[in-house]
Amino acid sequence: MQVMIMAGGKGERFWPYSRLSTPKQLLPIVSKKSMIEETIERLEGIVEQKDIFISTRRDLVDSIKKVLPDFPEENYIVEPFPRDTAPAIGLATVVMSNRRPGDVMVVLPADHYIKDKEMFQKDLLLASKVAQDTGCLLTFGIQPDHPETGYGYIELGEIVSREYDSPVYEVKSFKEKPDYETAKKYYESKRFLWNSGMFVWTTNAILNAIERYMPSLFEGLMKIRDSIGKFSEEKVKEEEFEKFEKISIDYGVMEKADNVLCLKARFDWSDVGSWSALEKVKEKDENGNVISSDWAGIDTRNSIIVNDEGIIGTIGVRDLLIIKYKDALLVADKNREQEIKKLVEKIAGSDKLKKYIL
Amino acid sequence: MQVMIMAGGKGERFWPYSRLSTPKQLLPIVSKKSMIEETIERLEGIVEQKDIFISTRRDLVDSIKKVLPDFPEENYIVEPFPRDTAPAIGLATVVMSNRRPGDVMVVLPADHYIKDKEMFQKDLLLASKVAQDTGCLLTFGIQPDHPETGYGYIELGEIVSREYDSPVYEVKSFKEKPDYETAKKYYESKRFLWNSGMFVWTTNAILNAIERYMPSLFEGLMKIRDSIGKFSEEKVKEEEFEKFEKISIDYGVMEKADNVLCLKARFDWSDVGSWSALEKVKEKDENGNVISSDWAGIDTRNSIIVNDEGIIGTIGVRDLLIIKYKDALLVADKNREQEIKKLVEKIAGSDKLKKYIL
Repeated sequence: MQVMIMAGGKGERFWPYSRLSTPKQLLPIVSKKSMIEETIERLEGIVEQKDIFISTRRDLVDSIKKVLPDFPEENYIVEPFPRDTAPAIGLATVVMSNRRPGDVMVVLPADHYIKDKEMFQKDLLLASKVAQDTGCLLTFGIQPDHPETGYGYIELGEIVSREYDSPVYEVKSFKEKPDYETAKKYYESKRFLWNSGMFVWTTNAILNAIERYMPSLFEGLMKIRDSIGKFSEEKVKEEEFEKFEKISIDYGVMEKADNVLCLKARFDWSDVGSWSALEKVKEKDENGNVISSDWAGIDTRNSIIVNDEGIIGTIGVRDLLIIKYKDALLVADKNREQEIKKLVEKIAGSDKLKKYIL
Repeated sequence: MQVMIMAGGKGERFWPYSRLSTPKQLLPIVSKKSMIEETIERLEGIVEQKDIFISTRRDLVDSIKKVLPDFPEENYIVEPFPRDTAPAIGLATVVMSNRRPGDVMVVLPADHYIKDKEMFQKDLLLASKVAQDTGCLLTFGIQPDHPETGYGYIELGEIVSREYDSPVYEVKSFKEKPDYETAKKYYESKRFLWNSGMFVWTTNAILNAIERYMPSLFEGLMKIRDSIGKFSEEKVKEEEFEKFEKISIDYGVMEKADNVLCLKARFDWSDVGSWSALEKVKEKDENGNVISSDWAGIDTRNSIIVNDEGIIGTIGVRDLLIIKYKDALLVADKNREQEIKKLVEKIAGSDKLKKYIL
């Protein structure tokens, strides 16, 4: 099994913790460890370190090295240009299949939170077996616990196998992020799962699918494969990447392929997509607050209070995000956290202030 | 003219700016300069530096020296024990009259804000002249602009002189902090002024008044006066201060004396008694915010945002105090700032947190 950890994300939604040079995956959002460290540690015992690859943007490599000083240099897969997940996964597939053909390949986002390591590893081994046995493309679906509009959904088809520890479903369709009414229908039907963005397949299976559904990407990837180990390797990679269409693996392959299977994750999962996600993954106090700071408060409710150091005192506040990190502080209505991105853009647009987002 | 600047206050209401070792008068609350520096600079041109004395608690002297490194050592008047304003003023009177008998003495709080330096100096010179001409105890009253319940009031009597630039009133009575209904009556009557705590008198006049209305204080002060320059000076001061009753000059002398006069201040004035006082002395933006920080905001109204360094970003907030200073941050409902003291007590009561108020 070889693992690709996708660590190219930007994470403006976590300002002031996330900055351009340190997106969410490099930050200790949930625990004292960065999310990428936790993602790697979650594989301990079932995948060797040498078989774990980090796929990222060129301008993030130095920041990641700071967070993971012991991670081997040769296990970075660097995208010359950001081209979304299909080209990134294609490149990783080529690297892995060149190294050890026929292996199972696991694709994991670097910035998701999973607490139940044991069940995660069981599901991963199970998915690996199904991928090898069937040659299909496996995706993990998450049973929704509310009608979320921020995720894509997987519509489950029939159960195609009960031979494994967990039933294996065929996938009827992939659905883009729905509106609230649709999300509610999905949620109530119990036939729709959240698309977690975690995939398991053999390198052969995904290469075949790319060849069939994204022939021009495949062609470029083959040129890159032929250049591996040659003097021209970097140049070819750059040339081909520049030409690749920006497209996600979901849109480019998964939605079209006829050999996609789905496992219902038996582990807990959160993509920690925004500050309020902390309410799901961290403990609340008796007033509904999530507090990760030295703190003293009077009549403080349903707020998220996070600090890198120092104390936060609060009096008579409700539903606030109070997030302090280094030289920046955010105080926001918790129900308006989607506007953090807009605020970051505002700061970026000011010559005087833009230093605070770098 | 000799000036006593009273700088013994505690200022818990300005946490996190104010700490035990740095109360409000030592902090740059309104401008970039500390309030005590501004109080001293406001006297430039009419009082020589050598004639300005700072009266304070022993445990504050080092903190004041840090803020005023050039202030002469011999011009500190240190209270061995905190005994409120009557003993403090008594001690200063003894020091000043010993130095230059018969001088006019001005008493100024170290932590009030006055912007109009020119008019302030005019009024001070005028008060000095009236004090010399009449031998009376002069107090400055402030024309209220709202029914404030946080100040004492001066009930004006007849105008006793129109010979000066500004009419001189006799004082009918002093009133303690009123309830709202009473404050409203005072405000509407126009016959009541706020008691600013600024006094002008000759050292002889105040000593005579202390002798008459606070004989035991007077007796102690005379012992202290006799010890000045002797080996026993500090010891006598300690012994006498320990015995003094804790009592304010208003209660001990002003309310009883029959030779009190009042001038209506022609300068602007604020005691900057709490964070929301900044709304009166600083400019607001078009959304009613007072901002003293690098700041970027979306839909932010009627809030007070103060920061020593770094940026504060806000989204969808109303009527908040957001005050960051060094290692501490306060986020509070602006209408509940009177609870800051309670919060500070809460922090003081925690072994883990009390470092944040020192």
